[in-house]
Amino acid sequence: MASILLLHGPNLNLLGQREPAIYGTTTLADHQERVIRAAADRGHTVEVLQSNHEGELVDAIHSARGRHVAIIINAGALTHYSWSIHDALGAFEGRVVEVHISNPHARESFRHVSVVAPKAVCTIAGLGAEGYDLAVRAAVVNAPSR
Amino acid sequence: MASILLLHGPNLNLLGQREPAIYGTTTLADHQERVIRAAADRGHTVEVLQSNHEGELVDAIHSARGRHVAIIINAGALTHYSWSIHDALGAFEGRVVEVHISNPHARESFRHVSVVAPKAVCTIAGLGAEGYDLAVRAAVVNAPSR
Amino acid sequence: MASILLLHGPNLNLLGQREPAIYGTTTLADHQERVIRAAADRGHTVEVLQSNHEGELVDAIHSARGRHVAIIINAGALTHYSWSIHDALGAFEGRVVEVHISNPHARESFRHVSVVAPKAVCTIAGLGAEGYDLAVRAAVVNAPSR
Amino acid sequence: MASILLLHGPNLNLLGQREPAIYGTTTLADHQERVIRAAADRGHTVEVLQSNHEGELVDAIHSARGRHVAIIINAGALTHYSWSIHDALGAFEGRVVEVHISNPHARESFRHVSVVAPKAVCTIAGLGAEGYDLAVRAAVVNAPSR
Amino acid sequence: MASILLLHGPNLNLLGQREPAIYGTTTLADHQERVIRAAADRGHTVEVLQSNHEGELVDAIHSARGRHVAIIINAGALTHYSWSIHDALGAFEGRVVEVHISNPHARESFRHVSVVAPKAVCTIAGLGAEGYDLAVRAAVVNAPSR
Amino acid sequence: MASILLLHGPNLNLLGQREPAIYGTTTLADHQERVIRAAADRGHTVEVLQSNHEGELVDAIHSARGRHVAIIINAGALTHYSWSIHDALGAFEGRVVEVHISNPHARESFRHVSVVAPKAVCTIAGLGAEGYDLAVRAAVVNAPSR
Amino acid sequence: MASILLLHGPNLNLLGQREPAIYGTTTLADHQERVIRAAADRGHTVEVLQSNHEGELVDAIHSARGRHVAIIINAGALTHYSWSIHDALGAFEGRVVEVHISNPHARESFRHVSVVAPKAVCTIAGLGAEGYDLAVRAAVVNAPSR
Amino acid sequence: MASILLLHGPNLNLLGQREPAIYGTTTLADHQERVIRAAADRGHTVEVLQSNHEGELVDAIHSARGRHVAIIINAGALTHYSWSIHDALGAFEGRVVEVHISNPHARESFRHVSVVAPKAVCTIAGLGAEGYDLAVRAAVVNAPSR
Amino acid sequence: MASILLLHGPNLNLLGQREPAIYGTTTLADHQERVIRAAADRGHTVEVLQSNHEGELVDAIHSARGRHVAIIINAGALTHYSWSIHDALGAFEGRVVEVHISNPHARESFRHVSVVAPKAVCTIAGLGAEGYDLAVRAAVVNAPSR
Amino acid sequence: MASILLLHGPNLNLLGQREPAIYGTTTLADHQERVIRAAADRGHTVEVLQSNHEGELVDAIHSARGRHVAIIINAGALTHYSWSIHDALGAFEGRVVEVHISNPHARESFRHVSVVAPKAVCTIAGLGAEGYDLAVRAAVVNAPSR
Amino acid sequence: MASILLLHGPNLNLLGQREPAIYGTTTLADHQERVIRAAADRGHTVEVLQSNHEGELVDAIHSARGRHVAIIINAGALTHYSWSIHDALGAFEGRVVEVHISNPHARESFRHVSVVAPKAVCTIAGLGAEGYDLAVRAAVVNAPSR
Amino acid sequence: MASILLLHGPNLNLLGQREPAIYGTTTLADHQERVIRAAADRGHTVEVLQSNHEGELVDAIHSARGRHVAIIINAGALTHYSWSIHDALGAFEGRVVEVHISNPHARESFRHVSVVAPKAVCTIAGLGAEGYDLAVRAAVVNAPSR
Repeated sequence: MASILLLHGPNLNLLGQREPAIYGTTTLADHQERVIRAAADRGHTVEVLQSNHEGELVDAIHSARGRHVAIIINAGALTHYSWSIHDALGAFEGRVVEVHISNPHARESFRHVSVVAPKAVCTIAGLGAEGYDLAVRAAVVNAPSR
Repeated sequence: MASILLLHGPNLNLLGQREPAIYGTTTLADHQERVIRAAADRGHTVEVLQSNHEGELVDAIHSARGRHVAIIINAGALTHYSWSIHDALGAFEGRVVEVHISNPHARESFRHVSVVAPKAVCTIAGLGAEGYDLAVRAAVVNAPSR
Repeated sequence: MASILLLHGPNLNLLGQREPAIYGTTTLADHQERVIRAAADRGHTVEVLQSNHEGELVDAIHSARGRHVAIIINAGALTHYSWSIHDALGAFEGRVVEVHISNPHARESFRHVSVVAPKAVCTIAGLGAEGYDLAVRAAVVNAPSR
Repeated sequence: MASILLLHGPNLNLLGQREPAIYGTTTLADHQERVIRAAADRGHTVEVLQSNHEGELVDAIHSARGRHVAIIINAGALTHYSWSIHDALGAFEGRVVEVHISNPHARESFRHVSVVAPKAVCTIAGLGAEGYDLAVRAAVVNAPSR
Repeated sequence: MASILLLHGPNLNLLGQREPAIYGTTTLADHQERVIRAAADRGHTVEVLQSNHEGELVDAIHSARGRHVAIIINAGALTHYSWSIHDALGAFEGRVVEVHISNPHARESFRHVSVVAPKAVCTIAGLGAEGYDLAVRAAVVNAPSR
Repeated sequence: MASILLLHGPNLNLLGQREPAIYGTTTLADHQERVIRAAADRGHTVEVLQSNHEGELVDAIHSARGRHVAIIINAGALTHYSWSIHDALGAFEGRVVEVHISNPHARESFRHVSVVAPKAVCTIAGLGAEGYDLAVRAAVVNAPSR
Repeated sequence: MASILLLHGPNLNLLGQREPAIYGTTTLADHQERVIRAAADRGHTVEVLQSNHEGELVDAIHSARGRHVAIIINAGALTHYSWSIHDALGAFEGRVVEVHISNPHARESFRHVSVVAPKAVCTIAGLGAEGYDLAVRAAVVNAPSR
Repeated sequence: MASILLLHGPNLNLLGQREPAIYGTTTLADHQERVIRAAADRGHTVEVLQSNHEGELVDAIHSARGRHVAIIINAGALTHYSWSIHDALGAFEGRVVEVHISNPHARESFRHVSVVAPKAVCTIAGLGAEGYDLAVRAAVVNAPSR
Repeated sequence: MASILLLHGPNLNLLGQREPAIYGTTTLADHQERVIRAAADRGHTVEVLQSNHEGELVDAIHSARGRHVAIIINAGALTHYSWSIHDALGAFEGRVVEVHISNPHARESFRHVSVVAPKAVCTIAGLGAEGYDLAVRAAVVNAPSR
Repeated sequence: MASILLLHGPNLNLLGQREPAIYGTTTLADHQERVIRAAADRGHTVEVLQSNHEGELVDAIHSARGRHVAIIINAGALTHYSWSIHDALGAFEGRVVEVHISNPHARESFRHVSVVAPKAVCTIAGLGAEGYDLAVRAAVVNAPSR
Repeated sequence: MASILLLHGPNLNLLGQREPAIYGTTTLADHQERVIRAAADRGHTVEVLQSNHEGELVDAIHSARGRHVAIIINAGALTHYSWSIHDALGAFEGRVVEVHISNPHARESFRHVSVVAPKAVCTIAGLGAEGYDLAVRAAVVNAPSR
Repeated sequence: MASILLLHGPNLNLLGQREPAIYGTTTLADHQERVIRAAADRGHTVEVLQSNHEGELVDAIHSARGRHVAIIINAGALTHYSWSIHDALGAFEGRVVEVHISNPHARESFRHVSVVAPKAVCTIAGLGAEGYDLAVRAAVVNAPSR
């Protein structure tokens, strides 16, 4: 039985409220609930954190060292410039899975570059809520289930 | 009668002390006072926040949803790279007014790009303290006054 | 009592006819009327000029020296390449306010650069007709009203 | 029970022979076998194709329309310039999963851009053979298993 | 009486099926039929080829030397990177007309560059099926008709 | 019976005198005559204008609205930077055909970009005088002839 | 005895009034007078034109063909983007001398590129009024004097 | 006797644990201890702070004003994009010394740009732990020792 | 006695027919004959292939593994974009010699970049037919001759 | 009576021998003779130096301080990258005139940038030998003649 | 007791004479004297060389191998393009310290890149004469003193 | 019997001492000896020069005119920026062969560009000492041997 850290970056606390045409009406709590259920189905636990503070995300990634087997991260806009998160993820010995609800390649050009991707084994984008299911499976693909 | 959120980003707490040749000797408190008075003259209230923390600014923008009709923001150096603030402002349903005391176009080239501007209806720059008066008017141009 | 020069650049004479999905159905005359009324409410007068000729706009900006306290300018496509207008505005001792009906940042990339902005104290964009009201206030913020 | 198309692009027929320091000693047949077994475990079938010809890969993607629920693709060097494959994948109604055995971000700069990624819901890189297991799960995450 | 070679590149065999919002519902056979009829009306014949293989298109262009007076080409995604087709067209002594059904300038930026255009006397874009009529006329403008 | 507007931009009044190695010895009047004859053969009329003034060309494009079915334009050097002409053509409901006597791709690099092209259904280049014949046909391809 | 055309572009009519720190207090009339005198000393005549209209400058350059042996041009801001003037100068058979009062390389970066320079035999910059003396000599270096 | 502020940015709390091949096995506490000892040998005191939060680093730089004679800073990944730290250092009246344990020029290209460097009098890189000794000397080169 | 593979890419089958001013009048067969003779003089054999298909060239390079000691390649336009050929050559254990008949540096800028060169020990350009003699010597410089 | 230093950079000793199609058949000695005569006609003396060594040119520029009123320099290929010469010229209190026999703007793109130009009051290009006459006049425009 | 090589590149022989506003009035001899004294205070000796010749600087760096423990270098303008010096420094087994009197980041953009820096353990800039003191300490930080 | 000039640029005098992991342990004298022997075997003579001075290399290339049939050049770091050597080689009527011991494409990016290559008929890289054998053959491929 493995433990996953689910991280959401800036503005994702507004999911379900902000720009539903792009992000849908599912709230962050819904997404987190879904991840927890999907992990539980496979016998894993999930710890969740959303923060608008880059430093808190870096701290959380550090604290995951030795405690979680994987990090699922949707870093919000920090995806595009936070080399601090990039370095923190580089210091995490487990598996990193990057998730985006919408498809960044179909939006503004500043969203086409991800500084998270070089540290992730898997980038899932444009699948909406379903992307989180996939992320859980990617995160624990080899973890022993119950 | 409307309410405005006045946000100042990193290093603006040093206004009046840092580089007076560029920013003048007026302190941040002076500027805030001036905005509060200008708004009061028109029957509006102002809430102020200065932070050197990007995350606190994002949090504040979120909390403005449903509580303020406008945000006046001088994001300091974050103006030039904080896509998190860009996205947070995009989730604010009210009016965003961008203010800069000095003229960024007359300084280093990294200051020529604003990631705040695409979300602002109005960018005021290079007017010094007077720019805040103008920002108040821009923020509440259609709000019913006393 | 102050006087404002309201300048419109190429193609804006077609306002209300061209691409209403972007620019709305309000005609240039409507916009000009609105500006005149808004200024009159504050005891100011407005002189208007629309031209598809860069040179005529430069001439008009020159003639504003000593006669107008402010220029409100929507330079149309010249916004993006007319360094002549940039230089002319730099020689105007009054206040320059830049207006765009639609949001240039939400359109083609060549519209993301403004050579007018470095000379303007205020750039108003994406507010449609209402942006002109705001521009008037910005233009005469300190001018004594009737 | 669903069917997957597993595509390999140029030079991947040499897997296990070329640059073992980068790609390991597992042959393409080994990888394909692994994918077939992983899919079979979940009750799915796999069709495989390797080609050094861009046109054959485009043809295969076309033929997948209506026949496969997903395409797992490691396009080799075509990853970096074949807009034809990009467009073909765009015409495929199923799910596209991109796989790379090594981490392209850790190699020459021309390998940092993928024209496949914008059409993929998932990009898996740097996991070696294991990446194929993950790709199978990503490909059929919602497909009914046996 | 002249003969024209009508070439279609990768993915255009899917016309009428792929992204009808962009390309319409007319099939490739419809377009080819239309070109043949339009040419026949002027007393000319048309040979057609669609291929997803760059090499076959190059071969076909070579075979057109001395046999056709003009090539009408919609090279699909190869338009944007196939310098081989560029060189092959440079070796064709007849007239080259480039056609695109949709307007590439209104789509992704990689579609804004054409390596076919420098070798074409005429580029027709954004006219849908009607563009082919125009292309026929351009191809045989000086060819003696029946 | 349809009417066409034939526009020539800066310096094209010198055709036949300037750089004959590049542009040939045919004068502008010759070209205009040829277009008028070619159109007349098909039962159409042509109005011609050459101007070295960007503003006059914009004015002329405006006046074409509702009066001409097509504009054939060789914008001279304005081709490469006049976004005002680009926008004016965007407001013209008829067909726009772009003509260049020489091949811009074979000359200085600043001539490789056309801001007219995105608004034209057809760009004809490098055919010399004959390009005008083709342009007429492109302009009225569907217009009822005598 | 030769004749020179002295052209000044946009905003240079304000010389002596605009930004004296950069341009000095000498008026355009002073500069023109100085050029006329310097030429007269050598037995040459000068025709002067200042215009804020690109088209008028192009017209003037055309009219210089066959009438003047040289053009001395300070194209103002048009220096940096007017390919129309570039082409017009290219059609002038005489000598072109480019003058700038201040040193464009010491100012904003957009002033570092001159589209006039490729057509000028001599570029004189940063010498203030004295640059005009030099320009006269450059213009008539081989012209027979009185 | 002078006081120095020693700042470490994101992820440097992991020194000794993360990527020992690059950063060695010395921990942050070891480095801090070394700096304190080296300063004490010269009669100076050191205050230390490590934070993963950009805002806390900015706050600390502000608080150094008037309290420390120098700041030694290893800003971690923030080195490459934090204009807020750049501006904060610009408001510090003392001396700034930049330290990097490894040589950023020998690593990924995003590490080749430092926004700290323009505000530092000295950048020390690639000397490992020894670099801190040098940094202390640089920081207090003119400070009176015991 | 060694064996060489001589590869020619797209459009080189037209040698002697296409653009003789650039490529001369020698046909591909002539060049191949020359290479065979030059190799025979040294006791080596040559296998030749020309293809307009990138995939066939990649296949041929693969088949050369273990059969040829060297590949002499003139990849035609694929020289400039075929990373697939680049990778295939990287998997060939023998020596790669790149040949160009004309000098690519003296032609269009897209021909200035070679993706073949990083895998070649020798690039010969601009020597016409003679370049093939040189290429043979370079290819077998250490191979034992008869 | 004033003294001029005439400097020629690398490869210009070959003038008259190298690429006569570009540089003509006049030798360096011819050019130097011409400059000396032109200066003598005005009562001035000339000292000449040609060197293929950047350092010797820098030394010579230094030695000109206080001894020559002007430097006429054709720095050859060093024109395009020698910031050392740029800085040396910046330390020369007299006038600098840059000469090129051919027009660099009409040649390879690396010749389009001059690091000499920012320090020259006058750049003369494309006038062949005659350019030296003009350079002399520019160099001594205000120097008292005999 | 250790020996240091102090190198100065082009134009630095003019220190104290050239642009005192930027470089101050201290001469090169003063700086060298200061370095010698500072080193002597610590029991070290200094050898000095200034040259305007890149090759002499490379020679000197070579001769330092095995004779000096450190090189302090202010390469003048060669700092920005001399890859030869970069390589020579790379072959020096001792410590390299880079010094600039003024702050290159506050001057022209060409001075923002240093090809010396990747080979230096320490770059000191903007400290004027005092920077040399610091450089001496950096150069001999671990060298045994008297 | 022909004569070859063998030139080595900056730092290559250190061959065998500097970075043996990259350049091997063979000294420059060894390489030169090898070239002399290889040439002698074919009946040719070799003159050698190594210099750290760009100007001496330019002088040597000039002196080769009419005396040597070929130049073999390894310009060291000057390869990447010396347009003076580029031009000098362009004035040499014989054959130029470029050699690099290591593969520049596998090293820092500044080594990926060669300004020597456009003037060389052959570039040999990454073959170590053996590359010189090949270079000799390339240099004298058509020269009559003993």
